[in-house]
Order: sequence, then structure tokens, then C-alpha cells
Amino acid sequence: MTASPPPRRTALEQDRLDSALKDLFEQRITFNQTLGLTVESLAATGPTARITMRPELVGHFLYGRLHGGVISATLDAMGGLALMVAIGEKHPDENAEQIMHRFARMGTIDLRVDFLRQGIGQHFIASAEVTRLGGRVGSTQMRLVNDAGLLIATGAAAYMVS
Amino acid sequence: MTASPPPRRTALEQDRLDSALKDLFEQRITFNQTLGLTVESLAATGPTARITMRPELVGHFLYGRLHGGVISATLDAMGGLALMVAIGEKHPDENAEQIMHRFARMGTIDLRVDFLRQGIGQHFIASAEVTRLGGRVGSTQMRLVNDAGLLIATGAAAYMVS
Amino acid sequence: MTASPPPRRTALEQDRLDSALKDLFEQRITFNQTLGLTVESLAATGPTARITMRPELVGHFLYGRLHGGVISATLDAMGGLALMVAIGEKHPDENAEQIMHRFARMGTIDLRVDFLRQGIGQHFIASAEVTRLGGRVGSTQMRLVNDAGLLIATGAAAYMVS
Amino acid sequence: MTASPPPRRTALEQDRLDSALKDLFEQRITFNQTLGLTVESLAATGPTARITMRPELVGHFLYGRLHGGVISATLDAMGGLALMVAIGEKHPDENAEQIMHRFARMGTIDLRVDFLRQGIGQHFIASAEVTRLGGRVGSTQMRLVNDAGLLIATGAAAYMVS
Repeated sequence: MTASPPPRRTALEQDRLDSALKDLFEQRITFNQTLGLTVESLAATGPTARITMRPELVGHFLYGRLHGGVISATLDAMGGLALMVAIGEKHPDENAEQIMHRFARMGTIDLRVDFLRQGIGQHFIASAEVTRLGGRVGSTQMRLVNDAGLLIATGAAAYMVS
Repeated sequence: MTASPPPRRTALEQDRLDSALKDLFEQRITFNQTLGLTVESLAATGPTARITMRPELVGHFLYGRLHGGVISATLDAMGGLALMVAIGEKHPDENAEQIMHRFARMGTIDLRVDFLRQGIGQHFIASAEVTRLGGRVGSTQMRLVNDAGLLIATGAAAYMVS
Repeated sequence: MTASPPPRRTALEQDRLDSALKDLFEQRITFNQTLGLTVESLAATGPTARITMRPELVGHFLYGRLHGGVISATLDAMGGLALMVAIGEKHPDENAEQIMHRFARMGTIDLRVDFLRQGIGQHFIASAEVTRLGGRVGSTQMRLVNDAGLLIATGAAAYMVS
Repeated sequence: MTASPPPRRTALEQDRLDSALKDLFEQRITFNQTLGLTVESLAATGPTARITMRPELVGHFLYGRLHGGVISATLDAMGGLALMVAIGEKHPDENAEQIMHRFARMGTIDLRVDFLRQGIGQHFIASAEVTRLGGRVGSTQMRLVNDAGLLIATGAAAYMVS
């Protein structure tokens, strides 16, 4: 006889969790607001977000390319978001408040970014997947593509989770 | 008999180069302006810059810590600045225009950031040193300390140079 | 009217190139021999290689897991191999000697490895894909799975190419 | 009234700990034996180790340079050793057995290596310093120089500690 899995949160509660995640990512993390990051999807297989080009985000003013620092910041934020979604899936019986409480101690341990091509585009889509979610550390891989689908950057990061 | 070294640019020309570097770093790289980065020193042994805490730069609004993305962006910018200074030293006979022209094709290949401690402080000092300057690739190591001298983050990066 | 692409090397010449690549990877890079790396595939979409567990390759003798250093060395070698294959595809009209000559100046600029799970298994499969191949720098992503298909490690690296 | 610090282990007990650390590093981690790593110093400010060039450790047989994989493995091992020494200092009242017991769950989370110059030399010295030792994660920076004092590689890594 095996234990039954804990009952999954209701669709309504999942909506509350998704709204809370979206609010945290887009509003409460002030610098994400500076970047203008908006959530596109909170799919369990890996979330996506959008960043729209603005003059404040360019590197050298002559070239109009997305600054490397914007790319790093975006990929770091995406890895964290992917882990938040994965933590929600790992504890399917917990309600939105319980899951959100788990993020209080999350933090990036380290980050690598590979800048592959110039960040030219009207908007960009960032995505992330969790390669491991342990009890203390989570690892992710991230990608940024432009509006033509060209791979602009990839990233890898480790985060403290609890 | 050995060849004499090329004559070094005059102090006046060095001042012109330093002004051009400062202007590029603080003004022309638009996102550095978003971050509020200001040059503190352009010493040949490794430049330093300052970042002053502002509400737009925090991570989660409750905690008031410097966002990881700000740290990554700052360290990336510092590694590039250290290479610019080193390129100026490598070609001591070239005038400011010639040196500035060399930066047109510079770009970050990849970046690692280690987030060691929470970014708490009124201001922060970023520094960088060049560990290798080759003909095609340059490598740097970077550090960020807060106003109490505490080490907040370290970084390592590789850049295309030409 | 567009230019016709250069004629691709013959199947026989491709076999000669593949043999030369395999010989370089398995025999001439002495440390790969120490590791016991063998090529499984030289597919243009990304090569794979195998490493078989041996006592010399374990970390702490009590646990019998693949040492992290073996994983780093393997992923570094795989990224290089993926770039070699990609360089062969980028110059389809060149013969084996011409392609092999291109590798004389290749070198790893930097490498990141994420150690996700303990390296337990009888053998492991390493794979790599090229995310960008430029004229001076190439970037790759790498993976190591064990004989049960479990993801053990991921990597990212940049290489000088010419 | 403040609490007195715990009494530090005796010089004899420190010798026992140093011997146990040296034995773990040089003998019990089998792959370190394959590399031929020997401890030079266990100084609290950062340990050093030596690696002597041997034919098995070269990359391409024609050039006789230290293989990148040897460099990665060595720097990874050094970061771990630096954390072990730091853990011994963090718990000065514990005896050798207690400290050694703390290493059972240590593991590398991720590693970056910058390959700066060709690994040419009769022997090499690796060193490491701890940039942060937390309750769950430790971070280190590492360097490898050749017998002429030339900087060959730098590294950064994060480790699980407990």
C-alpha cells in the first residue's frame, strides 16, 4: 500500500498563486519594473517573460542594442521565477500564501551569462527551466531570444531555496 | 641595441582620454546612467566606480537591498572599463581619438557573478582588474564592496577586444 | 542570380575528417586518454562521447562517484569537439587536412560547470551543442547524463577559434 | 558581560586535523592522486597545493601544455580545500574527527574557470581563498600560477557545506 499524493490546490487557488507570483515579479521587485519585465506564461515546464526595448535599456547610444546588464538582470530574474513555479509544483497541496512565504529566503548564489548576439529587436522573450530543485539549492538554465527568434543570450544560475 | 619605446601621450592628451572614457562610461552607455554609475578613478592598476542606492535599484521593495541585476550590470560595466584603461596603457603613443576608436568592437563574451552578501548600503564601490589582455580577448575580475567595506559580490568576465 | 554554394567534400573525405577528429579527441589529447573518453557520434547537430567509470576517476574512495574534475574535463573537451564539427560544416569544401589545421589555435577561454546530481553510473554520455560560432569566438552548451538518463551536470564555455 | 570564545583545539589536535585534511586531499580523493596534487600549505588565509607536470596531464601531445581539464579539476579541488580549512577555523573547539565529519556532505555546486595563458611549466602552484562561508553555501576564488609565477588560470566556485 502506498500513500496517496497530497491533494492538489484547486484551480482557483492556483489562479491566486499565479497572480501573486506575477505581482511579485512585475511589481514588488522594483528593478524588474525598471526593466519593464512582464510575465508571458507561468507554465510548469518553464515560465517566459517579455521585455520591450526602450531608450533607457540600450548600451551605447549610437547602436541601440539591449545593454548586457539588462540581459543579465532579466536572465537572473527568470531563473528565480522558474524556481518559484517549480516550488509551487513541488508542494501542490500548499495554498498561495504558504508558497509565497517560501520565497522570503530565496537568493541568487551565482550567475553566468553568455552574450551570443547583439540584442537588436523591438522586444525580447526570456525563458528558463529548472535543471535541479534540491532542498537547499536550485539550478536553472535561461535563454533570451529576440522578436525574430534569434538566440541572443543564454544563462545558468544557482539559487538558495528553502 | 634595443628599440626605444614609443613616446607616451602627453599629460594633456591623457586628460583628454580620461575625459572621453568617463563620458563614454557615464553618459553614452545609457543603461549606466539608469544605474547611476560614476567613475571614481581611472588608475592603470584598476579603475573604480561608485553606485549610490536609489529606490529604483532595489530588489524586493520590503528589504531595500541592491537588486542582483544591478550588481551584474555594474560588474560587467567595470570589467569593460578596466580593459579600456588597459588598452590605453598598451598603446601609450596613441591619442584619445585613436584609443576611443578601439572600443567600437568591444563586447562582453560572458560574465560570472557571485552574490556573496546582501547589497545593503548607502553607496557601493565597484573595482576591476585585468588578468589578461590579448589581441582578441581580454579577461577581468571584479569586486563590489558596500560603504562599510564589506565584500558584496565578485565577478569574472571575458570580452572581445580588437 | 546568387552564387552557388561551394561543393561539399565527398563522403570519403568526410570519413577521413571524422577519423582525424576521433583520433585527435581520443588519442592525441593525452588527458582525454587518461579520462577514457570515446566518441559515440560526430553528428552535425551535436556530437556525443562516452566515459566509462573506472576506480581512477572517482572522487572520495568511499562513495564511488565520478569526480567533479572528470566532469569538468569531459564537458570542456565536448564543447571543443562540438566546435570542431561545426567548423567542418562551416567550411564544407575544405578537405580533412585543411579543417584539422584550423584547430591549431583553438583554446578554451572559460568554462562553467553546474554539478547537479552525484555522478553515479557504470558509464556516462556527454553531449554538446554550439550556440554561436563566430570568426574569433565560439560558444557551446554541454550536458552529462548517466546510464539511467539522469542529468548529472551541465556546462557552458567559450573558445577561441580562427 | 560577554561570552568567552570556545577554547581553541591544541597544537597537537591541529596537527591531527592537518594530517587528516592532507590525507583526504592527496589520497582518499582518488582523482587528486591521478592528478598528482600535493598540499604545500594549509594556512588559514588560504591553502596552496602543487601539481607537477607529467605526460599524462598534457593536452595535445605536440605542445606539452597542461590540459584544461587538469586545471579545472585542480581549481575545483583547491576551492574545496580552502573551505575545509575555513570550516576548521570556524569551529576552533572541535577535534579533528568532528571537523572531518563535517565534510561528508560537501559538494561543488558550480565552477567557473578562466584559462588565461598556456599551462607551460615544470610545476604549478594552485591557491584558493574563501570569499564567503555561510551555513549552507561557501564561495571561493582560486588561482593557478606556473613555476615562473605567471598567472595561468583563475576560478570561482560555490559549494554546499553543512
